[in-house]
Amino acid sequence: MAPSLEPSLNLAWVLLTGFLVMFMQAGFAMVETGFTRARSAANTMAMNLIIYPVGVLGFWLVGYGLMMGGVREWTTLGAAAPGGHELALTLGGRAWGLAGAARFALVTVASEPSHLAMFLFATVFMDTAATIPTGAMAERWRFAAFLVYGVFMSTLLYPLYGNWVWGGGWLAQLGVNVGLGHGHVDFAGSSVVHMTGGLTALAGAIVLGPRLGRFRADGTIGAMPGHNLPMSVVGTLILAFGWFGFNAGSTLSAASPRIALIAVNTMLSSAGGALAALLSVWFTLDKPDVGMACNGLLGGLVAITAGCAFVTPAAAVLVGVVAGVLVVWSVGLLERRLRVDDPVGAFAVHGVCGTWGALAVGLLADGSWGNGWNGVAGPVRGLLFGDAGQLGAQLVGVLANATFVFGTSYGFFRLVDRLVGNRVSAEVEQQGVDALEMGTDAYPRT
Amino acid sequence: MAPSLEPSLNLAWVLLTGFLVMFMQAGFAMVETGFTRARSAANTMAMNLIIYPVGVLGFWLVGYGLMMGGVREWTTLGAAAPGGHELALTLGGRAWGLAGAARFALVTVASEPSHLAMFLFATVFMDTAATIPTGAMAERWRFAAFLVYGVFMSTLLYPLYGNWVWGGGWLAQLGVNVGLGHGHVDFAGSSVVHMTGGLTALAGAIVLGPRLGRFRADGTIGAMPGHNLPMSVVGTLILAFGWFGFNAGSTLSAASPRIALIAVNTMLSSAGGALAALLSVWFTLDKPDVGMACNGLLGGLVAITAGCAFVTPAAAVLVGVVAGVLVVWSVGLLERRLRVDDPVGAFAVHGVCGTWGALAVGLLADGSWGNGWNGVAGPVRGLLFGDAGQLGAQLVGVLANATFVFGTSYGFFRLVDRLVGNRVSAEVEQQGVDALEMGTDAYPRT
Amino acid sequence: MAPSLEPSLNLAWVLLTGFLVMFMQAGFAMVETGFTRARSAANTMAMNLIIYPVGVLGFWLVGYGLMMGGVREWTTLGAAAPGGHELALTLGGRAWGLAGAARFALVTVASEPSHLAMFLFATVFMDTAATIPTGAMAERWRFAAFLVYGVFMSTLLYPLYGNWVWGGGWLAQLGVNVGLGHGHVDFAGSSVVHMTGGLTALAGAIVLGPRLGRFRADGTIGAMPGHNLPMSVVGTLILAFGWFGFNAGSTLSAASPRIALIAVNTMLSSAGGALAALLSVWFTLDKPDVGMACNGLLGGLVAITAGCAFVTPAAAVLVGVVAGVLVVWSVGLLERRLRVDDPVGAFAVHGVCGTWGALAVGLLADGSWGNGWNGVAGPVRGLLFGDAGQLGAQLVGVLANATFVFGTSYGFFRLVDRLVGNRVSAEVEQQGVDALEMGTDAYPRT
Repeated sequence: MAPSLEPSLNLAWVLLTGFLVMFMQAGFAMVETGFTRARSAANTMAMNLIIYPVGVLGFWLVGYGLMMGGVREWTTLGAAAPGGHELALTLGGRAWGLAGAARFALVTVASEPSHLAMFLFATVFMDTAATIPTGAMAERWRFAAFLVYGVFMSTLLYPLYGNWVWGGGWLAQLGVNVGLGHGHVDFAGSSVVHMTGGLTALAGAIVLGPRLGRFRADGTIGAMPGHNLPMSVVGTLILAFGWFGFNAGSTLSAASPRIALIAVNTMLSSAGGALAALLSVWFTLDKPDVGMACNGLLGGLVAITAGCAFVTPAAAVLVGVVAGVLVVWSVGLLERRLRVDDPVGAFAVHGVCGTWGALAVGLLADGSWGNGWNGVAGPVRGLLFGDAGQLGAQLVGVLANATFVFGTSYGFFRLVDRLVGNRVSAEVEQQGVDALEMGTDAYPRT
Repeated sequence: MAPSLEPSLNLAWVLLTGFLVMFMQAGFAMVETGFTRARSAANTMAMNLIIYPVGVLGFWLVGYGLMMGGVREWTTLGAAAPGGHELALTLGGRAWGLAGAARFALVTVASEPSHLAMFLFATVFMDTAATIPTGAMAERWRFAAFLVYGVFMSTLLYPLYGNWVWGGGWLAQLGVNVGLGHGHVDFAGSSVVHMTGGLTALAGAIVLGPRLGRFRADGTIGAMPGHNLPMSVVGTLILAFGWFGFNAGSTLSAASPRIALIAVNTMLSSAGGALAALLSVWFTLDKPDVGMACNGLLGGLVAITAGCAFVTPAAAVLVGVVAGVLVVWSVGLLERRLRVDDPVGAFAVHGVCGTWGALAVGLLADGSWGNGWNGVAGPVRGLLFGDAGQLGAQLVGVLANATFVFGTSYGFFRLVDRLVGNRVSAEVEQQGVDALEMGTDAYPRT
Repeated sequence: MAPSLEPSLNLAWVLLTGFLVMFMQAGFAMVETGFTRARSAANTMAMNLIIYPVGVLGFWLVGYGLMMGGVREWTTLGAAAPGGHELALTLGGRAWGLAGAARFALVTVASEPSHLAMFLFATVFMDTAATIPTGAMAERWRFAAFLVYGVFMSTLLYPLYGNWVWGGGWLAQLGVNVGLGHGHVDFAGSSVVHMTGGLTALAGAIVLGPRLGRFRADGTIGAMPGHNLPMSVVGTLILAFGWFGFNAGSTLSAASPRIALIAVNTMLSSAGGALAALLSVWFTLDKPDVGMACNGLLGGLVAITAGCAFVTPAAAVLVGVVAGVLVVWSVGLLERRLRVDDPVGAFAVHGVCGTWGALAVGLLADGSWGNGWNGVAGPVRGLLFGDAGQLGAQLVGVLANATFVFGTSYGFFRLVDRLVGNRVSAEVEQQGVDALEMGTDAYPRT
């Protein structure tokens, strides 16, 4: 009898959806560049382009081994991989995973398709997280310092937190070890990818400080609108397209009928987010703010990412609507209260909505799926469906991200400041990072 | 024995091709915005962006139930769904379906992957239709009125006509009920999607009236070229990419070998349309008109959409060539004879070529496929292959669209005019809808 | 028992990846247009748009039959096609294939899904090759002459060399006929697609001559920076996305687990190319050149295309790094030594890196795959893995391309020069090809 085609179908699924996620790089590049000024457009584009190769090579050499070295196999892909080595801490008689330590540079698994496909899929997720801070830190970041950040993110910061949730680490073990639901559950990355990117973005924006002229001495705020709204809208639509791969691909299996619900929830939540943001700004400012609608749509996508496989379509709409309101609120909070300059709203979209999305699983997971998730029997249930422990596990994961990721990245940016400097000179900034830092204009007149 | 993988393969196919169709939103946004003026670019982009969430939520709450509530099952996706409820009219001893009335908000089918996938696939088709009028009505439409239109289109107009052809309604029943071929056959939407969008676009453009300065009192025509031709070209290529999903996905099955012919016909017809439009303008105006080549390519895509599964490759080229000529001719007709201002040629591309495409099935379907279509035994044959009845069914469907869709949308726009007003004030229009209606420029100078 | 789903899975794979390749047209259009001046943007876009329909129809009528008419079957797609007719030359007692001569206009195979899918897949590859010269010849090419070129490329030049490598022709037969490894091995087109495009681009750029003002009488070089760097960056990312389809789709089978390695190698090589180009320019010019990073990334993609299925991930990084350095070096060589004006670096990216990629197979193929390739038993091995003959076959293929493709295209362009003229007048060029040749500006002010 012929071998089953199922692993082949799943392999093709993981690759095709992974390609879609890679394409999100173009979406991020367009959203961020459209929301920044023309004088920085080449630089913003360059960061979104270059983070891809830097991340790919860093994750290949180091990151993937740290994050996924401890994972035994990818059953949907037909693999029975040799066990990796795991760094763990024993506490209270239980082992808590901290990091993997195998498969660096793919050396031991270069002939195993399941690992190769997982590497590709994991890499493009990492690059999504890594590209987020380039928006918050745009228009004033030294390009060399950005490159150092790219190495740090892809080899250390992202892989470590990623290991804790997706690599079998201690956040995933909160269920089996201490009975908190199914441990921290993040289906496709509200915390792993988006909080990590969003909180690193916040740390970076704080360390860099606001753009010159943004917050004036007299307390007023200098408007610095982006230079190309159509570019941001198209980028948003590219992201919405790629996100279907992001979420539905995370089953690692096309044979899982859950992919249909995941895709529908992704679509519905993005719709809720876009309209909630559009309408809530319209009410307060009397104009339909297109840029905010873009960020609301993205916030809805970020927020449903953790829970897309666990909640009903109606709950997905709710998750998106809340995200849309949160985006508007947190953009205002950052700008008017905290006086942090985040040119594209990266922290609001990815940090705040990522947090909300991770918590939403702990509230709204309806108990229809997830049997055996993280080694815990029974489906995943949120508080409203009877499992307060799940909300606890979500909270722990969120707090771990907020402290570890924010703290580590803040410390890292401070260190870089001391060693080589993060910020371009005032002269460079005033002329525009393109002319003096990149040596080219984005739009030369010829 | 393991269950068949076929439903999984088909589910993945429907989702992946549905994602491609969703990406067409970016293509429409770019084509339309490139063909309009810079002062309206934020507004044109905003409409193409916001129609997506408005349509998604409207179709989720109401539209899908009206359109697809009466469909029993999606056999390729492995489903045996409980029967829906259908509104029907009995006439001459036969029941004629008018609308479905079940599965609103997906409540009863939220755990059925086949329905969820179909919902996603049907939603992105609806949003394609819904986004078409934003081009014809660009640069002068009140944003609030546009939102009302979005609700109307996604909850009522599109679902009703869609039900008649794809939901088992009376146009689909023309074969079994009165022997007109296989009933109205529209494989992927030349009439359901494109005529509906194109005729609504025409009604809207008529009700709104031309842009100020477009048709002058002395009879001359004010040239109002779009502001960004490269944007329109890239959008055209995005649409050509997504259209493969549009047409080949409409088998709802990757196990159908027909997908190869469908994709090839789609490519060939678009090529015929682009070259026919390019050359026919070149002959008359002595310049190769890139914008018209874009519209010719799109016209070829629109026209082959109904027949892509039923005609030979050579026939597909012919369908495209005729469409390309029709686009050039009808753009001129609208502008110079009828004095209707359609800034992007939406009626020519979608309305005229959609009509041609629906009729072409009744001429050119070669009898090699479609056994059992709409419950009628034997393959689908056009007039040239011996079945005059099929052409009759195509004509009835086209006339139904032209009267019902055009009439209803015309009435709707008139009603909105009376209640809240469709058109921005002359002052807003002269300054540009971006500045005063949207509260932002598309390209702020900073 | 139900028939195997494998041919269906493979058919879907070939179509979906073919769609991704078609989308690369948008990437090429953006890269090239961004790298050229605003006054030529409509023309550069137009060439990238129109080459698609011209190529599709030319390849349908003639090219596919010449290239693939002699291929007996596509086993992964379940076909057992009737044998085609082959033009061959008998030499030394062996038949050497020169061209196919069947299946023109798909007439005999219009009901065979495997042939239809292969036609689509082969067509989009041909169009990739055909679009490459439009970059090197931008800003000064008569549009009518470009159209003639499009017919020539799609009906004759590409199909002939393509037949020799992929259609079972004499370069593929170097193994079985004279024992040179597995014959010329080019997995996805470093030589067939990219050298062909790149060398034709070089021939065209030489025949056309440099843009006015590019190389001044006093020996200095007139800087002519592209007008829209963000457009080129986004185009580069679109190409990187589509390239996954290009390479992984070339298995013609999703059931081949090799697709995972292919995709990973594609990603890694592009990363190596981008960083190598970025850093090598940075060292010499003290600025991180974004445009060169784009070309380095593309060079890495071009170079890994021949070998992606045959080399290890580490070797893929090496292939990319060498390609990135080669791009920088050869752009400089062309501009400063040879004084050939190639506005977008098409020869450096496609010609030079395509050559390197084809040769790299002969060096680095590791003997883990390719059993039976081109009818030769045993896996494909490069020189470093013990088979010097393979390197020989690669050299012969590369030399054949350099002589036949370059020579024929050079002769063709000369002939066109004599018959109708390739180059616009100086007046047209100075005003910009858009205004006078295309009759429109790319960015009208309204």
